[in-house]
Amino acid sequence: MGRTSNAKEKLLEAALDLIWERSYGVVTIDAICEKAGVKKGSFYYFFESKSALAVAALEADWNECGKQKWDTLFSASVAPLDRIRDFFKHVYDSQAELQKEHGQVLGCPCFSVGSETSTQDETIRLKVQEILQRQIRYFESAIRDAQAGGSVPPGDAAAKAKCLFALFEGSLGQARIQNDLEFLRILPESALGMLGAAAAHTSS
Amino acid sequence: MGRTSNAKEKLLEAALDLIWERSYGVVTIDAICEKAGVKKGSFYYFFESKSALAVAALEADWNECGKQKWDTLFSASVAPLDRIRDFFKHVYDSQAELQKEHGQVLGCPCFSVGSETSTQDETIRLKVQEILQRQIRYFESAIRDAQAGGSVPPGDAAAKAKCLFALFEGSLGQARIQNDLEFLRILPESALGMLGAAAAHTSS
Repeated sequence: MGRTSNAKEKLLEAALDLIWERSYGVVTIDAICEKAGVKKGSFYYFFESKSALAVAALEADWNECGKQKWDTLFSASVAPLDRIRDFFKHVYDSQAELQKEHGQVLGCPCFSVGSETSTQDETIRLKVQEILQRQIRYFESAIRDAQAGGSVPPGDAAAKAKCLFALFEGSLGQARIQNDLEFLRILPESALGMLGAAAAHTSS
Repeated sequence: MGRTSNAKEKLLEAALDLIWERSYGVVTIDAICEKAGVKKGSFYYFFESKSALAVAALEADWNECGKQKWDTLFSASVAPLDRIRDFFKHVYDSQAELQKEHGQVLGCPCFSVGSETSTQDETIRLKVQEILQRQIRYFESAIRDAQAGGSVPPGDAAAKAKCLFALFEGSLGQARIQNDLEFLRILPESALGMLGAAAAHTSS
């Protein structure tokens, strides 16, 4: 705590928190430095711009937090439809916790920042795209396993994964805009319904 | 053209175009005035802030453009599943045109601005929420009619409409972030699949 060697990590964390809670455009480098307790000179030692910091913060969040969660929830040891159901339940719980903490459903930082900046900042857009495409592959793999096991009808697993991901991100976006968890509460059932799961309400 | 009495309309149009193409945060009042060809003094005669202009621009876009399109595409004279299918085809065509014109899929201005500003600007958030809720009602009504006619299974039409809307907005968001129309091309089929339409590929 307070050691210079932590400055980079503190900047990454402060940037993600502020941008997620507010928006990319509205958060200044000064505000990030202040939240991180790091001097502006140190900022420019580590990052050449706010854009470079945002890219690094999104990647660090995936590596240090996101990937492990997705790996666990989408473990091949779990029945394929249970992976999807459990993942969406986890999303609901996390967003409920964020709402308690911040008074606001925050949604997905990648999707929000991506939608905000994609027409103007190609490096952020490419990083967001890369992370979202990693995530889609978990859906794709689970759908393919579900198809192989007969718990959902056959079909183009890649296309179905894209749809499921759009439903997921759209639900998070709606939940953020309306500050309403209802969109996420109904997500597990709708997701399984969308995949044509024989019994969307029961365990696979 | 160039008449003072058009200044307000020009500001509304310029604001929507710029914010949609870029983002709310990055667009300045100066840039809006410049694009509209209107002096800054006139801006403050009509609007007290950028936020007030954004709210008015979203509402004007709905009243002068959006509502009529939705009314036509969701006409009760059209078979309920055809309304949904035709609407999504229209969305694909519009976004393909925007991509040609701007080099970029732009997605939905309401959803993008809403996601960007919802945690910081309550007046924009409420306006976006109001417009999105109007749109969800078209889906709800079409789903209820489809259920009554037996072309989709019964169930909670309001919840299904929320899901369908999340799929729609999520697909638009992905298409914007990835600058890829594929998410919208597969939308009609996935939407009908999600609703459990007996034959998602054929006309209802």
